[in-house]
Amino acid sequence: MTTGKNYIGNLESAKGNKTFKTYNPELNKENETVFTEASIEEINKAVDLASEAFKEFRIISGTKKAEFLNTIADEILALDDELIQMYCSETGLPEGRAKGERGRTVGQLRSFANLVAEGSWVEATIDAAQPNREPMPKSDIRKMLIPLGPVVVFGASNFPLAYSTAGGDTAAALAAGCSVIVKSHPMHAGTGALVASAIVKAAKKTGMPNGVFSNLNSSGIEVGQQLVSNPKVKAVGFTGSIRGGRALLDLAAKRAEPIPVFAEMGSINPVVILPKALENRQAEIAKTYAGSITLGTGQFCTNPGLLLGIKSDALSTFVNNLSQEIMDINPSCMLHPNIKKGYNANKEKVVSQDYVRVTANYESDVENNYAQQAVVSVDGKTFLENATLHLEVFGPFSMVVQCEDTDELEQVIVSLEGQLTGTVISDENEVSNYQAVIAALQNRVGRIIFNGVPTGVEVCESMVHGGPYPASTDSRFSAVGIASIKRWVRPFSYQDWPNHLLPAELQNENPLGIKRNMNGTL
Amino acid sequence: MTTGKNYIGNLESAKGNKTFKTYNPELNKENETVFTEASIEEINKAVDLASEAFKEFRIISGTKKAEFLNTIADEILALDDELIQMYCSETGLPEGRAKGERGRTVGQLRSFANLVAEGSWVEATIDAAQPNREPMPKSDIRKMLIPLGPVVVFGASNFPLAYSTAGGDTAAALAAGCSVIVKSHPMHAGTGALVASAIVKAAKKTGMPNGVFSNLNSSGIEVGQQLVSNPKVKAVGFTGSIRGGRALLDLAAKRAEPIPVFAEMGSINPVVILPKALENRQAEIAKTYAGSITLGTGQFCTNPGLLLGIKSDALSTFVNNLSQEIMDINPSCMLHPNIKKGYNANKEKVVSQDYVRVTANYESDVENNYAQQAVVSVDGKTFLENATLHLEVFGPFSMVVQCEDTDELEQVIVSLEGQLTGTVISDENEVSNYQAVIAALQNRVGRIIFNGVPTGVEVCESMVHGGPYPASTDSRFSAVGIASIKRWVRPFSYQDWPNHLLPAELQNENPLGIKRNMNGTL
Repeated sequence: MTTGKNYIGNLESAKGNKTFKTYNPELNKENETVFTEASIEEINKAVDLASEAFKEFRIISGTKKAEFLNTIADEILALDDELIQMYCSETGLPEGRAKGERGRTVGQLRSFANLVAEGSWVEATIDAAQPNREPMPKSDIRKMLIPLGPVVVFGASNFPLAYSTAGGDTAAALAAGCSVIVKSHPMHAGTGALVASAIVKAAKKTGMPNGVFSNLNSSGIEVGQQLVSNPKVKAVGFTGSIRGGRALLDLAAKRAEPIPVFAEMGSINPVVILPKALENRQAEIAKTYAGSITLGTGQFCTNPGLLLGIKSDALSTFVNNLSQEIMDINPSCMLHPNIKKGYNANKEKVVSQDYVRVTANYESDVENNYAQQAVVSVDGKTFLENATLHLEVFGPFSMVVQCEDTDELEQVIVSLEGQLTGTVISDENEVSNYQAVIAALQNRVGRIIFNGVPTGVEVCESMVHGGPYPASTDSRFSAVGIASIKRWVRPFSYQDWPNHLLPAELQNENPLGIKRNMNGTL
Repeated sequence: MTTGKNYIGNLESAKGNKTFKTYNPELNKENETVFTEASIEEINKAVDLASEAFKEFRIISGTKKAEFLNTIADEILALDDELIQMYCSETGLPEGRAKGERGRTVGQLRSFANLVAEGSWVEATIDAAQPNREPMPKSDIRKMLIPLGPVVVFGASNFPLAYSTAGGDTAAALAAGCSVIVKSHPMHAGTGALVASAIVKAAKKTGMPNGVFSNLNSSGIEVGQQLVSNPKVKAVGFTGSIRGGRALLDLAAKRAEPIPVFAEMGSINPVVILPKALENRQAEIAKTYAGSITLGTGQFCTNPGLLLGIKSDALSTFVNNLSQEIMDINPSCMLHPNIKKGYNANKEKVVSQDYVRVTANYESDVENNYAQQAVVSVDGKTFLENATLHLEVFGPFSMVVQCEDTDELEQVIVSLEGQLTGTVISDENEVSNYQAVIAALQNRVGRIIFNGVPTGVEVCESMVHGGPYPASTDSRFSAVGIASIKRWVRPFSYQDWPNHLLPAELQNENPLGIKRNMNGTL
């Protein structure tokens, strides 16, 4: 049962006077629960609690943190069908997707639990004293990673579970030892509230300090702004639009104490299709990409919005085939009427241009909030001259850019903003002839894919989900995988500190049995 | 011989019309060489070259980069006495310090050379494909660290060698594979030019691309602003004042593409002296700290500017002893008349307050540009009520804060801005009674020291030189030690990439023989 209240630490609270409801895009009507937006007092109370809780939580053992994270996973699974139904009612996404995303969310929590239970992630490094060194004795210096402080996490519209309340940002921040305040996404406040209840249950069961987690409802931008401006908040995680992410980045940069904002934002995920691959298997590529473009109604940050090729008969045939394939796919529901509105408006901006050739645009009637997919084509020169064509059309849409030659293809890639992914479709022996193209692509993206599709982000250690701005606000970190814990920690040195007062990770006896770097060797 | 020109890549150039000279603070007169500030055209040319050079330099092998770095070190040593004399003539610092700092600079270059020659620093991580995994096959994903792009490095006034032209920032950025443009510090443009000539010689000898390094003269803030605003610049390193660092941070944050700025800025390095330690050895502590406060004329970023204790007879005696000890030390020369002017003005702001007790203020005549050291004392309440007392007085100055009790001591620490270091002077059994104090201190600093002095930064793997803002602009990185290379790199993933086209670090055969994380184990 969802009450529509906020969680201020372990307590449900609804003192604000602004209320809202979520929307069922499939049924095209509002859901029943009334949510109360957090008031300024509730926001500040949540941050104060998070700051107090941090004092205790930052030094809780890895074993205890793992217990907490695993219990969150258990409690999420215990919500069972209630969660799946709530998820579907607030997103228009099918049950299979809901269950898959729940699996991923639970998997992320458990992988962070394993990481901190094992303990080596703190990168313990010890340089022993050399009291007889000349000309000066050397001190004993020991380093490890420690948490930053209270972290604010913004729920993402397109991943109500995996990138929201108990998603990757929250799991990584809790694993790091940071307390977390979630700004719940208004489109799936019910899903968020259920997951929040699971986290609070887990916090109580495992004896975590009150305030280690709070969940705040909001219908607009004010709650988020208040949170990011609060001096006790020490870092921010965000997944969403460039406009939203940039606004938070700017706000954080203006603080008396600027804080890190990791925002994973827009990406059109360029796909370079090389000539021989096109010649040999354009039909197959067209089919694969029609599927990738429309997967999840095109609402993935890794959606392939830009297909780049060199003019040829094969490329023309590919455009025709892709357009046919995509018209054959049944339209599906978008997350919210506002998302569909945005999709239509952004698509219209492109298809209405004279210089754009619209090769597919699903015009038959569709159900409410279902998206009408489209494919368009422009030439390389046009793309280079019109920056508006670089903007993301969030939804089942892709643009083919037909370049004159390899040089223009390289120019088009160089002109792109930073991206999460870049893909190369190639015959194996072909790609070595396009080294400048590949180098240019690598310079604009965080992950490069050979003969695949960018959709589908494997959660593993070697995954990078991030990239040059505006794919993310800090390309030095990934939003996915256990390395994403690095966003919420800082290195800390102890010099000549008494052994028994050091954290266990750095004591001589290595009581935790973790991997450590001792005097330069592991 | 120094010509006073800029290095735009490998070429000397002086097209600007603004000139300046450096100053010998010991002799109190200008040095002879006329330096020409870089013009807008020269600035842009340097960045264009750096951007071009990056294309080649980013993939140069670790062995070649190591050769370059080691050759820079050799060429710096080959400058021999000319460099030492130039250094002394532009800083007023003694020859011993010049040679020590040169040793450190050369040592840093060689330690980065060793790091990249060995090669494991790229954190190569491989997750093998699982083509038969259910429900979906798993791709082969491989990750490593790659360089960000051209980096701008600002020379520091107080470390003409170790934190300037070929200092830690430059060495780390070149080791990472980034091209570097140095904005030379106007106070030691001659030292900078000599070191730049050594870097250019090394670049030519080892066949590095033209533009991998440039050195730009400047007398004001314009050159730096132009550099940070240039879209081709991808990161910034700075060591200096809070005002200067914050201005660059703000400028970088306002760019269409915001870029990371790592600025190591102000710090007053609080030292907590616990009661029993004071009782048992206040005289010895006073002597040690008089030395630490005046070391290098107090011009270290780790200078102990704040001594915190709990009111007692022993603390009063300590203040008297420290004051006497510091008055017995011979005044020494500051780096520049402007630095001395700043010192006097900032010191005056403090000593002129009614609520400040001045216990030592060297008032005898001193030579030009020599600093008159001082010690003052305030009570905890006063310190808490007057934020102006938290400001750094850059020079041989320290403030003793006498707190009523442990609670007030903790409050004082909590009220502090972020710091590079915190020190605890304690009898070994005493410190465990002050856990809240220690925790508060840890939360404000990057390195914590037991019974030592904060001055003297060991260059080793476990060193953290950085800390919460404003000690640095991003506490997640260190400015010293080989881990400082992390500031200039980002993780990058290859998905299903053909083995022979992967960088050597990620190929199946591990041709470089580096340490790699394979499917979760090292």
